[in-house]
Parts: sequence; C-alpha cells; structure tokens
Amino acid sequence: MTTAAMNQARVFRGDQRIDALSPFDRGHAYGDGLFETLRAHRGQLPWWDAHWARLSRGAQRLRLALPDQDCVREQAAAMLDGADAVLKLILSRGEGGRGYAPPAQARPIWVLSRHPLPPAPPASGLTLRWCDLRLSEQPALAGLKHCNRLEQVLARAEWDDPAIDEGLLRDRAGEVVCATAANVFALIDGQWRTPPLDRCGVAGVCREFLLEIAQARVERLNPEDLQRAEAIFLCNAVRGILPVARLGERQWAPHPALAGLRHRLGAAHPAFVPVAD
Amino acid sequence: MTTAAMNQARVFRGDQRIDALSPFDRGHAYGDGLFETLRAHRGQLPWWDAHWARLSRGAQRLRLALPDQDCVREQAAAMLDGADAVLKLILSRGEGGRGYAPPAQARPIWVLSRHPLPPAPPASGLTLRWCDLRLSEQPALAGLKHCNRLEQVLARAEWDDPAIDEGLLRDRAGEVVCATAANVFALIDGQWRTPPLDRCGVAGVCREFLLEIAQARVERLNPEDLQRAEAIFLCNAVRGILPVARLGERQWAPHPALAGLRHRLGAAHPAFVPVAD
Repeated sequence: MTTAAMNQARVFRGDQRIDALSPFDRGHAYGDGLFETLRAHRGQLPWWDAHWARLSRGAQRLRLALPDQDCVREQAAAMLDGADAVLKLILSRGEGGRGYAPPAQARPIWVLSRHPLPPAPPASGLTLRWCDLRLSEQPALAGLKHCNRLEQVLARAEWDDPAIDEGLLRDRAGEVVCATAANVFALIDGQWRTPPLDRCGVAGVCREFLLEIAQARVERLNPEDLQRAEAIFLCNAVRGILPVARLGERQWAPHPALAGLRHRLGAAHPAFVPVAD
Repeated sequence: MTTAAMNQARVFRGDQRIDALSPFDRGHAYGDGLFETLRAHRGQLPWWDAHWARLSRGAQRLRLALPDQDCVREQAAAMLDGADAVLKLILSRGEGGRGYAPPAQARPIWVLSRHPLPPAPPASGLTLRWCDLRLSEQPALAGLKHCNRLEQVLARAEWDDPAIDEGLLRDRAGEVVCATAANVFALIDGQWRTPPLDRCGVAGVCREFLLEIAQARVERLNPEDLQRAEAIFLCNAVRGILPVARLGERQWAPHPALAGLRHRLGAAHPAFVPVAD
C-alpha cells in the first residue's frame, strides 16, 4: 500500500511495543478512542503539553486509560528523529470481546505515526464551501477529538474539486460549527468570534491558543454572520492560521488584523512563523 | 490477552488474507466502517442474506467497497467449522494516510471473528433501565450498523449492576429509540409497535424480520407509551426475542402474544427455537 509505505507507524500496548493492531481492538470495532495530530518542528513538539492535556481530558470523559506520558514522548522523539513532520497519536481503549461494555482491565493501545508536512496553503487564502451534512448534537462527546469521525468523512467526501480547500459545517439548527478538519474564526465589527463547541465540533489546540491571543469571543455564528465578516480564518495545530479568501460568492482581501495574529502564533510555535517574516 | 485468546479472528484485504490490521486502517482511525453480528447454528448462517443486504445498503451509503460475498461466506464457514457460535464481520474502508478524504482506491479490509454464544437470557425476562445518555440525530447515518459506536459504549458504561440486563436509549427529544444492543417492540392496545430509525438507531436484522411477522407499526414511542404497554420485548440477530420482565418499577408477566412470535422466529432461524418447544 503506497500510503502506508510513505508513512511510518509503531503500535504499543501499555508501555510495550507490539507488532500490530489486534483484530479485537475496540478502536477498530467502535472508534472507541481519541487522537491527537501534532506539528513537529526539527523533531520538537512545541505544543506537546496542550495536546497531552486535551488527550487527558478526553480520556477522563471516556474513561480510557492513558499510557505513560514520558514513554509516549520518548517514542515520538525517536520516530521524529529531528524532522519537520506531522505526528499522529491514536489512543484506543484496548482489546475486548463482543459487546459495548468497556472491559474492566483493558490496557490502552496506542499508535504513533509520522507523516509528511501538508502542502503549503495557497498564498492568496483558502477557498471554502458549505457542506450539506449537518453535524449531530451530542454534548457527551462535544469538543473531544474522538475516533468517531464518520460525519467528517462524509462531509469531506462531498467534494473532490481541488479548487476547494475546505468545507464549513453547520449543526442541525443551521449554526456554524467548524470546518471538516479545522476551527473557524470570524472578525465581525472589529471583534474576533468563534463558535461554541458544547454540542458538536472539536476543541482544537490552535483554537484554544488563539482564543486568548485574539481575545476572541465564543459566540454562536450563523452563515449570514460569516457573510458580513471583515475577515475569516481557519486554524488547526498542523497548519496554524489559514486565511480564507473565498466562501461561495463572497471574497475577502488579506486583512491587516491577521498579520498580528500570525506573528504571535509564530512566536509560540516556530513551525508557524509567517513565511514573509 | 484473555479475551483475544478465547476468540478467533482473521483479517483480509480484498480477497487476500493478511497477517494483521494495518496501523493506517481507517476503521481504527475514524470508525470508518460497518459491521454485522450473525448467529451461527451448526456452522450455518440462516440469516446470511439479510445481513449481507444490510451491509450492502450501508456500504452504498458510506461509499465503501464491498469484498466478494462468496469469499467472505467461504471464510466464515471455514471459521465456524460446524459450530454454534457468534460470527462478527467488520468491514472498513481500508488503509489511508492522514485526513478525512476517502482514498480513491482503498481496498476494503475485513475482519471475521468467532465468539462463544452469549449466556441464555433469564427465563423470567429481562430487567431494563433507562440510560441517561441521549442519542444524537444524524439522518445520514441513521439505521446503519456503522463503527461509530461511542454513544453505545458510553450508554453501556452507565451501569455495572449485573441485575440489569439492558438499557433503553432515547433521542434528544425524549422519544424511545432502542436498547444499547437491541431493538425494542411494545404491544400497545393489542398492536405491536417499534420506533422509527430515520434519525438514530440501528435497523436490526431481527427487527426487520419481526416487523413483518408481528405486523408491527413503526411509530414514535415515548417512555409513557412503554409504561402502559401490555408487553415489551427486545430483539437482535444474536439472541432473537428477549421478553422484558421489568423496566424501573413497572413489571410485566409473560404475555401469550410473545409465544406465537417466538415460535415463528424459531421456524425461520433454528437457533431461536424456543427452549420450551
């Protein structure tokens, strides 16, 4: 398989490396797990603490056992070997038999994989579309980066036009939530705003950082709010801030408010230093 | 691992047996797959056609490639080797890199596993509880037996009292949907009724069979409807019809209408011939 050959992966149970995923892994059976996707810069993971904190919060809510943090970090460093890359960590509840009841003593299974950096975003900004699929509302899972991602798979499968960079998702009430693989911020009346994630969506590590930097308000946004925004960007922990140039017929010129945010993001994570600097 | 050792599993890519699941399997990463759980009787799978039909409908909606049916059936027969057992089939989209976009040419990965029969249900009938978790509504996935099952995992984790056999789930509007691993039928005013599954829930193979046999109506049911029902049963393709004896404070004596249904079910699937016959 080409994709697999291009990437590398290691599988662990507890703190032991194992040869392969078990066919009884509950991650495979039920998506019973969590994941993190980290941007590595010269083998370093500047946002490790934020990612681990989110993973821990998710594990607490799903009552998953966590592996030893030092062990995961050591293995990650070994796999990165000084590279600029993307590191993905998938944590599952471990092996089980049939049935949804979580086994009392399952040891967590975790997979570390290393992937090439994504292509640079278009210099002019992203082109977005609206996805038809509406996200369902589940407060028990909202905000978590869990492994039940069929909604995102279906939403991303809605288009294959390479001119479209990302799709925006709404909830069943029509409110904006996020993109398929990024959070969204909008500058409206001079104030940065981003939707709440208490009913659906993933609480991104980059979103969390930018909430503070941008002094953003968490506020419900509908499509009309985005239409009248002075600027829009997407963000995630792999690609940083991604200015939006177009959403349907609406177009945006580069906005000066974004330059300051990108500069401060670059100071916090060297992989995100703006190229023009 | 004890559970794994008790059970058996084989993994395939396309029509080739492979040694193990890939760490890049999208089933593991995103729950990007479907499953079927079949009751085998002396190595036979009387409801094969119904299970395969449901799998095919799900694969069409998720745009998953199906493996060759004859190949799956042949491997299943070999694994069952004449036994009374439970056979589980998990189909995933196959391997991929990072990102939600379904790979254009992924070959499906499928896992067959054999499990012991579940213990016989209590002769007096099941004891049920109401789950706190409310199912989210997602018409794009409703009815499918897909591998995004964190809601069921969380719901099943709500109790560990062995006196409770199953939990009933409601949607966010408070309407009854199903149990964590079974569908539900209620006899109300002499008419069998079962909830629609157009917004959440799994369209069970046994439910489909019984809909016709019981001339049941598909109708929204709320908890009060269940309270006043003359009889309630759960059903699934592994355990057949499971009469309910208790739900909270409400208790039901065995109802004669159930005997006829169980008899007809036993005629269609010999694993479900009532013990008393």
